[in-house]
Amino acid sequence: MDKIAIFPGSFDPITRGHEDIITRAIPLFDRIFVSVGINREKKSFFTIDERVGFLKTVFGKYPEIKIDTYEGLTVDYCRKVGAQYILRGLRTSADFEFERSIGQVNKKLYPEIETVFFLTHPEFTSLNSSVVRDILSHGGDASMFVPVGLKLNR
Amino acid sequence: MDKIAIFPGSFDPITRGHEDIITRAIPLFDRIFVSVGINREKKSFFTIDERVGFLKTVFGKYPEIKIDTYEGLTVDYCRKVGAQYILRGLRTSADFEFERSIGQVNKKLYPEIETVFFLTHPEFTSLNSSVVRDILSHGGDASMFVPVGLKLNR
Amino acid sequence: MDKIAIFPGSFDPITRGHEDIITRAIPLFDRIFVSVGINREKKSFFTIDERVGFLKTVFGKYPEIKIDTYEGLTVDYCRKVGAQYILRGLRTSADFEFERSIGQVNKKLYPEIETVFFLTHPEFTSLNSSVVRDILSHGGDASMFVPVGLKLNR
Amino acid sequence: MDKIAIFPGSFDPITRGHEDIITRAIPLFDRIFVSVGINREKKSFFTIDERVGFLKTVFGKYPEIKIDTYEGLTVDYCRKVGAQYILRGLRTSADFEFERSIGQVNKKLYPEIETVFFLTHPEFTSLNSSVVRDILSHGGDASMFVPVGLKLNR
Amino acid sequence: MDKIAIFPGSFDPITRGHEDIITRAIPLFDRIFVSVGINREKKSFFTIDERVGFLKTVFGKYPEIKIDTYEGLTVDYCRKVGAQYILRGLRTSADFEFERSIGQVNKKLYPEIETVFFLTHPEFTSLNSSVVRDILSHGGDASMFVPVGLKLNR
Amino acid sequence: MDKIAIFPGSFDPITRGHEDIITRAIPLFDRIFVSVGINREKKSFFTIDERVGFLKTVFGKYPEIKIDTYEGLTVDYCRKVGAQYILRGLRTSADFEFERSIGQVNKKLYPEIETVFFLTHPEFTSLNSSVVRDILSHGGDASMFVPVGLKLNR
Repeated sequence: MDKIAIFPGSFDPITRGHEDIITRAIPLFDRIFVSVGINREKKSFFTIDERVGFLKTVFGKYPEIKIDTYEGLTVDYCRKVGAQYILRGLRTSADFEFERSIGQVNKKLYPEIETVFFLTHPEFTSLNSSVVRDILSHGGDASMFVPVGLKLNR
Repeated sequence: MDKIAIFPGSFDPITRGHEDIITRAIPLFDRIFVSVGINREKKSFFTIDERVGFLKTVFGKYPEIKIDTYEGLTVDYCRKVGAQYILRGLRTSADFEFERSIGQVNKKLYPEIETVFFLTHPEFTSLNSSVVRDILSHGGDASMFVPVGLKLNR
Repeated sequence: MDKIAIFPGSFDPITRGHEDIITRAIPLFDRIFVSVGINREKKSFFTIDERVGFLKTVFGKYPEIKIDTYEGLTVDYCRKVGAQYILRGLRTSADFEFERSIGQVNKKLYPEIETVFFLTHPEFTSLNSSVVRDILSHGGDASMFVPVGLKLNR
Repeated sequence: MDKIAIFPGSFDPITRGHEDIITRAIPLFDRIFVSVGINREKKSFFTIDERVGFLKTVFGKYPEIKIDTYEGLTVDYCRKVGAQYILRGLRTSADFEFERSIGQVNKKLYPEIETVFFLTHPEFTSLNSSVVRDILSHGGDASMFVPVGLKLNR
Repeated sequence: MDKIAIFPGSFDPITRGHEDIITRAIPLFDRIFVSVGINREKKSFFTIDERVGFLKTVFGKYPEIKIDTYEGLTVDYCRKVGAQYILRGLRTSADFEFERSIGQVNKKLYPEIETVFFLTHPEFTSLNSSVVRDILSHGGDASMFVPVGLKLNR
Repeated sequence: MDKIAIFPGSFDPITRGHEDIITRAIPLFDRIFVSVGINREKKSFFTIDERVGFLKTVFGKYPEIKIDTYEGLTVDYCRKVGAQYILRGLRTSADFEFERSIGQVNKKLYPEIETVFFLTHPEFTSLNSSVVRDILSHGGDASMFVPVGLKLNR
């Protein structure tokens, strides 16, 4: 049976941390869905189309990776695409407690799912999408925090 | 290429927490080495032979699992058996900080290795080998903390 | 002197975790006020009447428990109902740091008050009201996370 | 039924933090056993008799408190003295993770037991017996860290 | 070269915790800018003018301290005023993880900057501006949490 | 008045993390004592002379740094050399809780002392002397974890 993982996120926008975890996990799975969870109640910085576009730019060269979007519960999306694994990166112990809670709830809702964690590279420990948005909204240069060559201009 | 993981530990003795993580990870890998790290300077409760015996009792029915022992650095052992992954369970944020440190050092020493984490089942969050040893040394009954049917009598 | 505790919360809605802590604490106190703190600036998922109704359904059979609501500072409410104890459950170290801060501030404001903590059952570590709301808002089935038999239909 | 708690510890020696938690908890229980757990494999700084003597000096004026010693599992001691509660103080999140593990194991071994936590006074957050021993072994003055008036001279 | 630090914050309002850290740090630096970061998208409790006024009342007697405001990235402000250090207090491990992330990002954006941390006095561990606002909005008396003699009346 | 700091440690052996913190702190102080705390009850990997030798090799070129040893309480040593500051690096939240406890006790014992923290560079988060000793004792190559050019051969 093919080993299929999803890496869910809002990717608003994708960071070097996301890119690092996902590319390192490619050899472990047959397919990885990098999937933008759509939350219509939360205001985003970039539109869904922009975020999907960034992901396609970054991961277009990897045949094992498929860019997607979904609404609703993550476990329902896993069932739909046949994923047995949810892939996540861990940076800090605050991260861990947050992810453990989500992972345990997901497993109660869908016992066949496993959350699999990779360690974030130390250099990216302090990095998340909110850091990038904060720099951009102050007119700063966030290029060192997003994948090499990715243009965030709208 | 076969996906090979090691699950290193002292397994003094194996607990239900170890058993749970390892059996849940079987579908993700082609082979898992469950390997007793030998530390000649640290006094153990059970001998190496006893600990290996417990592991063989618990995992004997799984063809994907191989019981082994090793001395020296874990990354050197990974190189020797051709493992690309180190498998570990995460229970608490203290666990996470400890494992992150080891995982980051291992990756500096051997950049091809990835540490992959599964979440411990909530029921086993408080459980480790030290709990079992403490109960045994006080003459208590630790059977609810070790794999079903495993006899720890020496 | 009667030992009186309050268990304050927004209970939006009550979870199995809340139910577990409160019922386990009944033998320690003569009376427990389970009290919905009203915060008019925060949008809730269920109305105050709905939340009080759920609590009455769950705890109606316990003569030691009184369902109530309050506005303003929790310590002022404690003074009003004569409570010497604030009862809380602890799930994670993030919980602990949050509750410690509130508990220390409450003790500065009202030195006679003690916050008393019980440990959440491991099975409910990942559970809070926000998990339930998230499942409900996506049309999922949250019945395994709320007290047995409680209907959340509005 | 009388509400009986034990506060187990090595009390090597008692600190102001211990004294603070125990005296604040007196009104909640009918009896509190302050009980020195004897661990014959661990080298202590003060003898058991010295430690018991310090406790009697500090708590002798409280009729609700009984000083005791025990060997073996804490839950077996609880059964023996009829305690339904284990009383502990919480200082830090590291404390919390340690106590949660012990509390959850104790509840598996003896489901009738509840661990009840009080918050350490902020002033005593950094204080434990090891701090006192360290100061004493360097010839320093630790009197500000132990109960007022307690002489630790042997 | 003069040693110049900034202590950035929203100071909505200043607490005794802020006052304690900043005054203890005076001997280490030649000048400390206590600087209100203006965030036009976040609703504040006190106006910028009120917050600056409180700071001037509290720190007016210290010639080494300069009260200021700024918009944009903190590192850009550091460059502008010639600060080599960002001064922060640490209360809890949650604080630490938050501040570490900001400090590491700031150092990537401006490698010449160092974040320097002092330990919050234990008595102020539970205190932050949000506690003060919460008490004030419920009509309570927050005077014990703000600098002695400071009137928060608008 | 000269600003004098000590950086106490066992330095068994010095790591790149130590070196990084200490050299970054040079501009903030007039003098930094890098001081090996002698603990005669704890078995060390390198002798005191070896450890002092490593420190002299690494820091010999900095006139502001003085290598020293001391026995007894750290605060007594601070008094002796006239230090107003204890300098420490922070890597993780476990580190922080440990250092906070020591820092608060030191301030109770010697109120004039301040502990000042710098953030460890992300690359060195997982690194401590124990990692180096572990690699050396297994015959591995630890050179990437100790200051460039430092030979640990005895």
